[in-house]
Amino acid sequence: MTATTPIETALRTAIRDIPDFPKPGIVFKDITPILSNGELFAQTVDALAEQLNKIDVDLIVGIESRGFLFGAALAYKLGLGFVPIRKKGKLPAKTVSREYALEYGTDVIEMHADAITTGHNVVVIDDLLATGGTAKATIELLQEAGATVAAVQFVVDLAFLGGVPVLKSVLPANTPIHALVTYA
Amino acid sequence: MTATTPIETALRTAIRDIPDFPKPGIVFKDITPILSNGELFAQTVDALAEQLNKIDVDLIVGIESRGFLFGAALAYKLGLGFVPIRKKGKLPAKTVSREYALEYGTDVIEMHADAITTGHNVVVIDDLLATGGTAKATIELLQEAGATVAAVQFVVDLAFLGGVPVLKSVLPANTPIHALVTYA
Repeated sequence: MTATTPIETALRTAIRDIPDFPKPGIVFKDITPILSNGELFAQTVDALAEQLNKIDVDLIVGIESRGFLFGAALAYKLGLGFVPIRKKGKLPAKTVSREYALEYGTDVIEMHADAITTGHNVVVIDDLLATGGTAKATIELLQEAGATVAAVQFVVDLAFLGGVPVLKSVLPANTPIHALVTYA
Repeated sequence: MTATTPIETALRTAIRDIPDFPKPGIVFKDITPILSNGELFAQTVDALAEQLNKIDVDLIVGIESRGFLFGAALAYKLGLGFVPIRKKGKLPAKTVSREYALEYGTDVIEMHADAITTGHNVVVIDDLLATGGTAKATIELLQEAGATVAAVQFVVDLAFLGGVPVLKSVLPANTPIHALVTYA
């Protein structure tokens, strides 16, 4: 049994359930109360940084757009560069892209083609892990570009949706997949 | 005549012109090379913080989605909370919204209705000031919610598009409108 950390308790208290968003029957975990509390936001970013303290990292890769919030602050704290992963058509220069399956249909993520140099050690960050489709596509896009995904981080893991096994299927064994709060 | 600061020179060197994005005839200022350079990104956030050193600020308000990158890192540095301004339909809880004119048609921005408490001093941040439509709507939305907009910050001001006068039209006299790089 793992003890609950103070940051986990504070995050569970702050995160609020919004019923029927984005559609009926879905209960959305709203992380904006974390952001609006300056002390909690800083503690969250510090906790994300602490998880990386034994990992060699060159770049933080954040997924649009809530991953930008935690990822950019984390990159700033660590003095690292930040690479954005965006929906199709948002990045202005030459991109590489990857299509992935949604519940109905497909979606496409893009990254600037020159964002990654072969051999870069990168950490992928997003606010929340659900089924893992976007994060898996991001990992594969980075690997195709020659990067090593050294860790994957989330503030929230909706573990009941099975995202972690999906990510493990495309990562080397023992690659850390961290979340600060897990909903079983 | 104002001397060029080292950060301004570094930013001008990093920002790249992407012709014909998002549509033919437009030259887009791509700020992603600032992000991917950890040292420059940190210097940029530090320069934004320095501009606020005499201003009483309670919250940083960032505009989706590149404003999230600079705004979240700035909020982290200053130990302040962050409030996201998003396109319609993205925020899960009860929102307040404002419609504004585009070149063709209109767009809508939203903010969580409980994000602002009357009397809050807030700073609005986005990556780039163009014609000022989104930033003006953001300022008005914040003022309607009872906030005082204490400053507005951009990394880049495309001054030839006339955004600053648009923002001045809705701000108290002497409210600082800062940009780290201005293209005349």
